[in-house]
Amino acid sequence: MMANAPEKNKIVALSGGVGGAKLALGLSRILPSDQLTIVANTADDFEHLGLPISPDLDTVMYTLAELNNRELGWGLEGESWHCMSALERLGGENWFRLGDRDLATHIQRSVLFKEGCSLTEATAYLCNRVGVKHPVLPMSDDAVRTMLITDQGELAFQHYFVREQCKPVVKGFRFSGIDQANPSEEFLASLHDPALAAVVICPSNPFVSVEPIISLRGVRETLQQISAPVIAVSPIVKGEAIKGPTAKMMAELSMPTNAYGVAQYYADWIDGFVLDEQDADSRAQIVDLGLQVTTHNTVMRSLQDRMDLAEVVIDFAYAMKENTSL
Amino acid sequence: MMANAPEKNKIVALSGGVGGAKLALGLSRILPSDQLTIVANTADDFEHLGLPISPDLDTVMYTLAELNNRELGWGLEGESWHCMSALERLGGENWFRLGDRDLATHIQRSVLFKEGCSLTEATAYLCNRVGVKHPVLPMSDDAVRTMLITDQGELAFQHYFVREQCKPVVKGFRFSGIDQANPSEEFLASLHDPALAAVVICPSNPFVSVEPIISLRGVRETLQQISAPVIAVSPIVKGEAIKGPTAKMMAELSMPTNAYGVAQYYADWIDGFVLDEQDADSRAQIVDLGLQVTTHNTVMRSLQDRMDLAEVVIDFAYAMKENTSL
Repeated sequence: MMANAPEKNKIVALSGGVGGAKLALGLSRILPSDQLTIVANTADDFEHLGLPISPDLDTVMYTLAELNNRELGWGLEGESWHCMSALERLGGENWFRLGDRDLATHIQRSVLFKEGCSLTEATAYLCNRVGVKHPVLPMSDDAVRTMLITDQGELAFQHYFVREQCKPVVKGFRFSGIDQANPSEEFLASLHDPALAAVVICPSNPFVSVEPIISLRGVRETLQQISAPVIAVSPIVKGEAIKGPTAKMMAELSMPTNAYGVAQYYADWIDGFVLDEQDADSRAQIVDLGLQVTTHNTVMRSLQDRMDLAEVVIDFAYAMKENTSL
Repeated sequence: MMANAPEKNKIVALSGGVGGAKLALGLSRILPSDQLTIVANTADDFEHLGLPISPDLDTVMYTLAELNNRELGWGLEGESWHCMSALERLGGENWFRLGDRDLATHIQRSVLFKEGCSLTEATAYLCNRVGVKHPVLPMSDDAVRTMLITDQGELAFQHYFVREQCKPVVKGFRFSGIDQANPSEEFLASLHDPALAAVVICPSNPFVSVEPIISLRGVRETLQQISAPVIAVSPIVKGEAIKGPTAKMMAELSMPTNAYGVAQYYADWIDGFVLDEQDADSRAQIVDLGLQVTTHNTVMRSLQDRMDLAEVVIDFAYAMKENTSL
């Protein structure tokens, strides 16, 4: 071992919206800001009412700032809706609800874009203003847009997710723009950091939150090649997603609707899997995929739950590192 | 007289913001929607926070819809400011305050623009949604921007008016874009309507509200040529403006700071002048400019005041028509 080799103590967490952000918050409470980078999916991003909306980035930002609306599961706490009400009166689109305070985020992001900022720079600016200390990165500064291939034709993500309330039957996905998009420099640098201890795949939707990030040029290959372990936390407990359409999508795609189905989906680029303790009976099956497995409570109701799970994930990563070096 | 000659019963009112909108409201309460067209100045318009803002059009629209904030003198009644507060937290620009409900107007206008609407079309749409029955027209669909030449250099209108609170000393005006701009087709058509009975210049700032409209290609000449009388209502009472920097500007431009100064400024393209009764001693001087003059209370505190003044203006116009035909 070289005397000056850096201590491998940095975690990169890949996250979608709500579920992923819960674990990101837990990680942020036990790791200092120079040891945790959160990379968020931006394939849900879209322009709405002329404003640039980044739902997953904002959910992560609001959650880390502890400004998130826990009742709604999205947006800001103590939000008001006067602009939306007035917009309805004016016949404006109201299927995607933007609160008065949340609007300021999108307006300021649009101003930053006009000033020439990238999404990475705009996100850093906004996070700084709301007191988020840990780096939050968009997966890419290029536009990638998830399209759902459904029984009602191809739908843009927010149209499927919000306007159609996930009702259409999903047959597949298309990430529009993915071939032209590059992962952000900062994201790539974080994966190649010599101090990288682990990459954590937060409990997010495998198809529309995690897959777009992994599909960016070179990311899947990098995760396969790096020595740091890649650990996914199951977004499915007892065959159901805590929130969102993951289980419904898995059924529609004729996949096993359980944690094993997720582990199998990720198997060729992850090293470890964190299974909910209620699903412990799937452990052997997942180990058979060639993955290391640990079990814990993954249903994060309290802040303590989030921190406990974060700790388990980190301990698991360090145990795997030691294994690897044996 | 031809048997089928249309009755001359249509009024076109040219207006800036608050003061002009008061008289426009009075006119709208005594004239049906097919006998009154209100044309608003758009040289105060600007893009702010990425949104298209049309202060005078909106003041007229909100006033006619009786949604205007009487306390503030601008914006909507019962307004809230949650977005602005959140924007301040994000370090956004806060010198031009946009209320939560007012924001919806600008957002929906931006959506309408993206759909290909002109400002004329967007204004008609918005007015219809808030129940304004009388046509409200922007002076032009082309961008004209008032620049103030001041002792602090050239300032865009809202920077002078709102950010600098009218403090800089005004040396002159420049209407950026005026040479490329055309009056809107609907505005021109209203001036050439055979049923036109009178053009009313509402009590608005002569330099930054009325002058841009008059300076549009062909408008001044049209007002000089049409047979319908052009009648201006004094925006100055006892040497002071009811609201805004008119008197301050007149002093800085070394003009007589009184109603006579305004009448003189308009004299070559108006026919009649409505003087406040408190300024009756200026009547002879204004008559000497070649104008017909009537006096009335022009300080519109109540709705009844607005309607009374509107009635006086219309009666004055009809009396002038009769004079002209003698």
